[in-house]
Amino acid sequence: MTPTQLRYAVADGVATITLHRPERLNAFTPVMAAELAGAAAAADADDDVRVVLVTGSGRAFCAGADLGGGEGTFRDRGTRPDPVPRGTVDGVPRDWGGIASLPFARLRKPVLAAVNGPAVGIGATMTLPMDVRIAAESARFGFVFARRGIVPEAASSWFLPRVVGISQAMEWVATGRVFDAAEALRGRLVSRVVPDDELLPTALGLAREIADNTSAVAVGAARQLLWSMLGAPSPWDAHRAESRALGELGAGPDAAEGVASFLERRPARFPARLGDDAVAGVPRWPAPPDDVS
Amino acid sequence: MTPTQLRYAVADGVATITLHRPERLNAFTPVMAAELAGAAAAADADDDVRVVLVTGSGRAFCAGADLGGGEGTFRDRGTRPDPVPRGTVDGVPRDWGGIASLPFARLRKPVLAAVNGPAVGIGATMTLPMDVRIAAESARFGFVFARRGIVPEAASSWFLPRVVGISQAMEWVATGRVFDAAEALRGRLVSRVVPDDELLPTALGLAREIADNTSAVAVGAARQLLWSMLGAPSPWDAHRAESRALGELGAGPDAAEGVASFLERRPARFPARLGDDAVAGVPRWPAPPDDVS
Amino acid sequence: MTPTQLRYAVADGVATITLHRPERLNAFTPVMAAELAGAAAAADADDDVRVVLVTGSGRAFCAGADLGGGEGTFRDRGTRPDPVPRGTVDGVPRDWGGIASLPFARLRKPVLAAVNGPAVGIGATMTLPMDVRIAAESARFGFVFARRGIVPEAASSWFLPRVVGISQAMEWVATGRVFDAAEALRGRLVSRVVPDDELLPTALGLAREIADNTSAVAVGAARQLLWSMLGAPSPWDAHRAESRALGELGAGPDAAEGVASFLERRPARFPARLGDDAVAGVPRWPAPPDDVS
Repeated sequence: MTPTQLRYAVADGVATITLHRPERLNAFTPVMAAELAGAAAAADADDDVRVVLVTGSGRAFCAGADLGGGEGTFRDRGTRPDPVPRGTVDGVPRDWGGIASLPFARLRKPVLAAVNGPAVGIGATMTLPMDVRIAAESARFGFVFARRGIVPEAASSWFLPRVVGISQAMEWVATGRVFDAAEALRGRLVSRVVPDDELLPTALGLAREIADNTSAVAVGAARQLLWSMLGAPSPWDAHRAESRALGELGAGPDAAEGVASFLERRPARFPARLGDDAVAGVPRWPAPPDDVS
Repeated sequence: MTPTQLRYAVADGVATITLHRPERLNAFTPVMAAELAGAAAAADADDDVRVVLVTGSGRAFCAGADLGGGEGTFRDRGTRPDPVPRGTVDGVPRDWGGIASLPFARLRKPVLAAVNGPAVGIGATMTLPMDVRIAAESARFGFVFARRGIVPEAASSWFLPRVVGISQAMEWVATGRVFDAAEALRGRLVSRVVPDDELLPTALGLAREIADNTSAVAVGAARQLLWSMLGAPSPWDAHRAESRALGELGAGPDAAEGVASFLERRPARFPARLGDDAVAGVPRWPAPPDDVS
Repeated sequence: MTPTQLRYAVADGVATITLHRPERLNAFTPVMAAELAGAAAAADADDDVRVVLVTGSGRAFCAGADLGGGEGTFRDRGTRPDPVPRGTVDGVPRDWGGIASLPFARLRKPVLAAVNGPAVGIGATMTLPMDVRIAAESARFGFVFARRGIVPEAASSWFLPRVVGISQAMEWVATGRVFDAAEALRGRLVSRVVPDDELLPTALGLAREIADNTSAVAVGAARQLLWSMLGAPSPWDAHRAESRALGELGAGPDAAEGVASFLERRPARFPARLGDDAVAGVPRWPAPPDDVS
């Protein structure tokens, strides 16, 4: 099914997801949420995709929830029929932000956000389960929820304190201020700031650094390991999972090629395909709750 | 009941708590612990309070535990009758530091620490459950417990590694060194350092930024969400809590006003009151253990 | 038993562990893993040791797993008899990296890594449960696992995101890039970078700052508290453990000496010995899983 509010293209191992409602500054809608979830799943399943890149069309990344419904925007979401199905958690309708963001947490491939302009509300929070955020100089950020009378979403109450620390997270969330790329860099929300016209080349350069040098199964297993261990109580949990994964991967073709290419001082050509689901016995991020329908 | 070792005043939506034993550099006592807990509870319950500001009288913020009892200070706490009741956890008397600090973790309003001078021992650790720490140039910090033969308290063994990272936390705790505001800034213990005479204006400016622009219920729910999610194993926990909170707040008057004021490009005037206990179904920080009496 | 692949020496309260296979850039082997575990246990048990310092012989810290076995290096680890016993977790052979690193997590004394040159693969990950990493200007780091077709080990999937944050961790792990000391400093992997010939003096200076000023039991209890609380769900867990520890330590001789020496403005001479196992009722880091044999 062709998405209508984003563009999805794969080239040279990189899947680029471009939020595409430029006339609305790529404002977020339930349809876009469903299409983002679909694009994440497609990128996960496609062995030709090594890295995922998310950016926006035109001068914005994503200006936030589309408020075209007026002051009833958030209220009506709970009372009108949903434009697309969203399921429930604990008996309440799921947050559209989480519907869009959590599939990126479950992705077994690195996800890079290239923030090309304003990233406000869900435009900021949807990037938090992504691995690296690179900002153009004209990027702006805002966790503006408290100025709209609602709470942060997209599971950002879990992600944001882990990405930038609890103190910085609380300052941005409690003020709801919109801030520039330099403040985002100081607060460690983004890893670097580049001139606008260097944004995509920089992001693609990082994608190439990954795609050209590493094993897909090794990166996939590592991504699941690192993110899931954020929620594990003890390093012994990591020792168990790593011991199992090393046993499997160590006996596989990519470990042999990785060592051989290193010893022969030549580029590696890793043969293993990622395939579906768990990699090397590493549990994937927890699945949706039981009552999600 | 009027506090005797601190001052508590509310003006323009900001509750200012001032540690007030200037002749003793605001040294910490059991009475001060109980009064801090009381002030936090009062600020939480008062709908006229949007933001809490904590600072010190005179030239210190808080020089640490009052050691006027001599070498038996810590020993005697376990053997003499307590000056005020403190209860027990797991059958042992509760740490006075935690009695003072944990009510600030439970507060449903942002808490800003304006560190005006030395903040040593409990003077440093009591600020960790606060959201933002701003330092005057003459501020000093020290997690000096190992130099006194005791461990960090006020639940700081949980808070400090989450605020500054485990490596920085361990360097400060293992050395027990006293360090200046510049080192605190590099180590991300404080968000900024300002000249002494700009400390209170800066902190009040941040308080105004919150109080003038945001919804009390939205900020209250967000503060509970972000801090409690630090202890949650999975972003799905956040998705559940956020979905419920968005359902409630999205149907409320502040979401309508937040969207309307944004679309009309005017300041928002949020009508909702925080009231008591849980906001929008967001669980409050865990209550004291059962055997606290 | 004298180690063969490292050197272990105690002087003035500091145990120095020096990786010592300089002709192989201190490349890691199963024998070195077992010797590191043994050295950590020895340093933990020796009351004359207050601080542990880990460094490398010659121009490298540790160049990673010894790949002298050729492309079958990782495969053969699962099929050939192990050179030393390693036990299992969940029925699979334990990762040698974790065998080396986890005993440093359990140590009740501060551990400083003085990174004197390349620290790649296990050379980088073994330092993560250590408290402070100081880099010489010629240090290099690389979490190169994905370039070898395997996953990060030594429980680094748990430690690395907690030390440097999840975004920086993922960028280094997904690219597998080798980076210099300046990038390590910016990414907060190391606390400082010094000229090569100042590395050991700087590390020893930090060790002295700890050994000369602090109580062994207080530091030991604090180290267990801070690291284990990284995995605890709530600050109330800290309040329970700290209340118990303060009760015990507050009644002990080091608290009396700590307060007395402070009041008398003289250096403290702490009498308490660390002894064995738990300090002041603080639970030690979880023991190896049941099926480790």
